[in-house]
Amino acid sequence: MKLGIIGAGQLGQMMALAARPLGIDTAFLDPSAQACGGRVGELYCADYADPTGLQQLAEFADVISFEFENVPPAIVAELARSRPVYPPAEALATARDRWAEKTLFLSLGIETAPVAEVNDQASLVEAVRQIGLPAVLKTRTLGYDGKGQKVLRDAQDAADTFAELGGVPLILEGFIDFEFELSCIGVRDQNGACVFYPLIRNEHRQGILHRSQPMQDPRLQALAEQAVESVMSALNYVGTLAFEFFVHKGQLMANEIAPRVHNSGHWTIEGSRCSQFENHVRAVMNLPLGSTESVGPVAMYNVIGKRPETQALLAVPGLHWHDYGKSERPGRKIAHITVTAANDAQLAERCASVEALLINDL
Amino acid sequence: MKLGIIGAGQLGQMMALAARPLGIDTAFLDPSAQACGGRVGELYCADYADPTGLQQLAEFADVISFEFENVPPAIVAELARSRPVYPPAEALATARDRWAEKTLFLSLGIETAPVAEVNDQASLVEAVRQIGLPAVLKTRTLGYDGKGQKVLRDAQDAADTFAELGGVPLILEGFIDFEFELSCIGVRDQNGACVFYPLIRNEHRQGILHRSQPMQDPRLQALAEQAVESVMSALNYVGTLAFEFFVHKGQLMANEIAPRVHNSGHWTIEGSRCSQFENHVRAVMNLPLGSTESVGPVAMYNVIGKRPETQALLAVPGLHWHDYGKSERPGRKIAHITVTAANDAQLAERCASVEALLINDL
Repeated sequence: MKLGIIGAGQLGQMMALAARPLGIDTAFLDPSAQACGGRVGELYCADYADPTGLQQLAEFADVISFEFENVPPAIVAELARSRPVYPPAEALATARDRWAEKTLFLSLGIETAPVAEVNDQASLVEAVRQIGLPAVLKTRTLGYDGKGQKVLRDAQDAADTFAELGGVPLILEGFIDFEFELSCIGVRDQNGACVFYPLIRNEHRQGILHRSQPMQDPRLQALAEQAVESVMSALNYVGTLAFEFFVHKGQLMANEIAPRVHNSGHWTIEGSRCSQFENHVRAVMNLPLGSTESVGPVAMYNVIGKRPETQALLAVPGLHWHDYGKSERPGRKIAHITVTAANDAQLAERCASVEALLINDL
Repeated sequence: MKLGIIGAGQLGQMMALAARPLGIDTAFLDPSAQACGGRVGELYCADYADPTGLQQLAEFADVISFEFENVPPAIVAELARSRPVYPPAEALATARDRWAEKTLFLSLGIETAPVAEVNDQASLVEAVRQIGLPAVLKTRTLGYDGKGQKVLRDAQDAADTFAELGGVPLILEGFIDFEFELSCIGVRDQNGACVFYPLIRNEHRQGILHRSQPMQDPRLQALAEQAVESVMSALNYVGTLAFEFFVHKGQLMANEIAPRVHNSGHWTIEGSRCSQFENHVRAVMNLPLGSTESVGPVAMYNVIGKRPETQALLAVPGLHWHDYGKSERPGRKIAHITVTAANDAQLAERCASVEALLINDL
């Protein structure tokens, strides 16, 4: 069986590494000849909209998937005429547009921050009047890692930020003074069966994910799974999906979905019986889903911009180093570290060693 | 960093899969263009003795290793003039020759079955006189999976088998009516530090490994580690080494060593913090060794000759499928299965499901 992946970054690479033991060959379409996925599968180097590149990928693959949500939906729809494409085009179209996303959440009864569409100065004024300040102005599409969004604290902010971000469709969201952020990762197969990983508590630094760790909270777990399942079902979803929430006064407030494997689930490679990557591959290739049962205490750190000293790092017991083979550059995710241990105290100790060694360059 | 591997079968492929997250690129030398390692790294397709192929590998690699012990030692010695080669040529030379191996064991005080060199009819008669019958006549080199050896029960057997195997150097070994076989896998780094995995109990079917499972026996573990460490130290070893023993009346009797990652250690991918493959790569690339701590109950089955029905197999929870991407052929190792579970009872249940699905063709 052969899997074609649009995008050959680290997410694509980790999908291919999970596909290999299943006996599945992988090829990628990516505009960069240096894309790291090319080290573990065939790389067709072309723009995502390039007809030749798309045709090569379609000819190679039995099934096509993608590692990021900003693939133009028209391209996905075109590919889907000749090959199964999962997740489906509709999921991509929804997830890449914050307004479509929030509208879906609200239609399914999933609570979000107050939100309004902003297309011009007049609708901004109206949105601010409705929602109040502070609030967050965000581009409807192409935002990630805190990019394409800004907190508005007063009327002057609103005017300046509109001038800065304006020209593209926006939304205004009520500012939530949340206690923390978490994500819930689910996987849906082609028969509609779903599995879920434990909730993940996420810490960000300057808008970029810094640390993720699974957590136990049966009440929130049940609420989150219900939200993920209803969204996946509404989108007729197939594959792994991540849903990010704010936790505010003990309640979940939906933030956004990512229709793909997710940075906050990288610990599942070592921490779960079957990782988010393998389960994505199983789902899109129509294989039975694997167990999301936890193996033991685990935490994940992103390595941003600069590699720590490898000799010292690899000497930390229970540490798993995942180098994406990318060059160093401030703000770039170049690797991640998974820390495993026999118990929570040992995990905390090992995490302290890792934190002392990290020299992230944001 | 770049690792060159002689041989691109499943062992080489699993080394490359372990090397990738460490940021290490892999290339292989293998005479077969279909060798499965070619799916996860560059494959130089040439005979192991081909000067161009060897030069390509040496030009690619910072360090060279191998996935099997039957590489002619002269080639390893030649490669070692331009690049570090681990394990060292001496370890290969010893491990590929049963007589050199037994002589080493005995010189280190490691108990073996009674053994004698057999080079002609006269020395066979003398060996039978010394050791008695039944005994096992084995070729000194190129034996594996029960090939190149035969049990002698009487004088007629001895004459017939000598005619069959003769013409190459042989050894005669006393027949041990052992209770079971086990292996101990150790890893030695470039500073001489060693780590060991738990002892592994191995079951064979028609001479081919069928099932491996780690076991706890502190007394035998200590004896085995001592033997492995003394052999690795004597050979100035770097990398992963497997030592096979017979257990006879509660004692270890040395059988043979494999100077490489070993089939009986495949479960370490999921069952140990750091697998035999990753630790081999760490050792040869001069990185700190990883923890050999166990993660939980685990067992491994070989898939021989014929694949089981994948849909049913992947539905077994906690099951890890490792397909080598090789075509089916009787007696050929084409995949392995690792079964993981939260406790021993659950493991036994899951193993029963796997055994019911296996349709091995020996």
